[in-house]
Amino acid sequence: MSEMVSVSAAAERLRGAGRIRILTHQYPDGDTLGSGFALCRALQKLGKAARVECPDEIPEKYGYLYEGLPSPDFEPDLICAVDVADAKLLGELEGVYAGRIGLCIDHHGSNTGYAGELLLRADYAATAMLVREVIAALGVELDKPTAECLYTGIATDTGCFKYSNTTAYALRMAAEMLDCGANSEMINRTMFDVKTRARVELERQALDSMRFFLHGRCAVMLITNAMIAQSGAKENDMEGLAPIPRQIEGVWVGVTLREKKDGSFKVSVRTGNHADASAICSLLGGGGHLRAAGCTLPGPAEQAVEAMVEVVHRTIGDCGGSPRPSSALR
Amino acid sequence: MSEMVSVSAAAERLRGAGRIRILTHQYPDGDTLGSGFALCRALQKLGKAARVECPDEIPEKYGYLYEGLPSPDFEPDLICAVDVADAKLLGELEGVYAGRIGLCIDHHGSNTGYAGELLLRADYAATAMLVREVIAALGVELDKPTAECLYTGIATDTGCFKYSNTTAYALRMAAEMLDCGANSEMINRTMFDVKTRARVELERQALDSMRFFLHGRCAVMLITNAMIAQSGAKENDMEGLAPIPRQIEGVWVGVTLREKKDGSFKVSVRTGNHADASAICSLLGGGGHLRAAGCTLPGPAEQAVEAMVEVVHRTIGDCGGSPRPSSALR
Repeated sequence: MSEMVSVSAAAERLRGAGRIRILTHQYPDGDTLGSGFALCRALQKLGKAARVECPDEIPEKYGYLYEGLPSPDFEPDLICAVDVADAKLLGELEGVYAGRIGLCIDHHGSNTGYAGELLLRADYAATAMLVREVIAALGVELDKPTAECLYTGIATDTGCFKYSNTTAYALRMAAEMLDCGANSEMINRTMFDVKTRARVELERQALDSMRFFLHGRCAVMLITNAMIAQSGAKENDMEGLAPIPRQIEGVWVGVTLREKKDGSFKVSVRTGNHADASAICSLLGGGGHLRAAGCTLPGPAEQAVEAMVEVVHRTIGDCGGSPRPSSALR
Repeated sequence: MSEMVSVSAAAERLRGAGRIRILTHQYPDGDTLGSGFALCRALQKLGKAARVECPDEIPEKYGYLYEGLPSPDFEPDLICAVDVADAKLLGELEGVYAGRIGLCIDHHGSNTGYAGELLLRADYAATAMLVREVIAALGVELDKPTAECLYTGIATDTGCFKYSNTTAYALRMAAEMLDCGANSEMINRTMFDVKTRARVELERQALDSMRFFLHGRCAVMLITNAMIAQSGAKENDMEGLAPIPRQIEGVWVGVTLREKKDGSFKVSVRTGNHADASAICSLLGGGGHLRAAGCTLPGPAEQAVEAMVEVVHRTIGDCGGSPRPSSALR
């Protein structure tokens, strides 16, 4: 297990190193990339060799995070992972670096303790908030590009300050980034306001598939391989679909069934105050959190839908109705 | 024209009154209601008779703003409008109160100066931010319900801190409301995360109607009376549709045409960095802002679409293409 360290101890560890490689998790998001590039910029300002490595190709929209940043090649004397809860999430970099990671900075309570030292704050909305504290402990002033990296981490992991993990501290730190010149308008537009045509088409088809059960308390949305192929949607276009059914008025349990290559279904369950997503999914061999959980079900689609609705029915009761479909969207 | 007053002068005016009626604008939103009820709560704490009047029925989702708040009946000695840019926006209350409004607190640069005194900050994202300053000047401590009213105003007028009007000050003030106990999770869920089934159905049909022109630079979405009738959508369900076409990757000009009762079309134009919405709409007798503008066009739909695309074409040029539809969404 990792030794737990404080912000100042983590800063000392970084200060003692000369050549630092920073690792992000696979399927990179705004927090792992924003944290990584912010830390990299700060370390370079201290005259150190520093570089970010990501197991996957970085989606184009994150280009501003590393614009103008030198990416030197060197043999590291410290390897630091940011926002990486488990060495497995290093993907193809796991084999290269596992067992050699000296420091991890993370906000996931589920961190597996794979690094030598671990700076962890599970109550922080984003790893970027911890990185901001480390940069302050290093005595590096925030410039605009670094502030934009940190803002990106905070904004993306809080759903632009909408999710329940948004604390007063997170809002104040975001305000500080604006003070440092972060172009939040550009970042918000890039992160939250642009959809590909393929995504819009997939959303349209997914809405077409929406059905309601248990007197409207349960909504089920289906995303099949045929829809994915027809829309041309890529992996990136799938983000943020799972919450849609639960957002509909009167729905307690929102279910999204996404077909996998092998014809089975990846099930995402989202609930409001009235139902426990984790309890529902654990009845089907899955698990997760109170309001967001998942499991896997065999196909075909109709059989998977039936199994889900049956379990939801068992969990939330009749709501005055039966587990027959009460209506389709149209 | 109104006499422009400071925060402390506005607070003095309120302190000098004993019975204050607070007016909101018609089609009430989170800022006018949040501002109104926050001010009302603070004035009641000072032992004054205070009550909010709204020209329209207040949508149910705003119920928490006035929960537990007494609504006494009295003859006012001060009438105060909040977030009301023009006396016309008082709807059916205009006839009752116009010419008798002693104080207006507002953040619209376009305020017409109909009130005796005007406290205006056009650089503030929300009127609620000004109301917060007035409450501080009145020396009233923020309790949880008042903080929730103010948070609602700030969050709704900034699109949950996503719009370009979101300043560091707005973020810090929201943080203060969380410190005062505001349940931002409940508010964000209520304001940003719930859609009616009718709304989802209307969105589905609107997406079906989406067409692309000018090599994908212009997207046009149609909302007809038939769609509205078939989906069962009400006025409240129409909010937030206009930005959809512009959010699609590659689109410079997003156009939403909404059919009116008389068969003509209310046109909403949204643009990114590459085009001027106001310039486009002014060519058709409308107007507005750089990135959001509107106009009215006669039907039928196909003729209105053609007229719009022709004007967009004239404004943004060929983009290497012609004003023929390049494709439908599917």
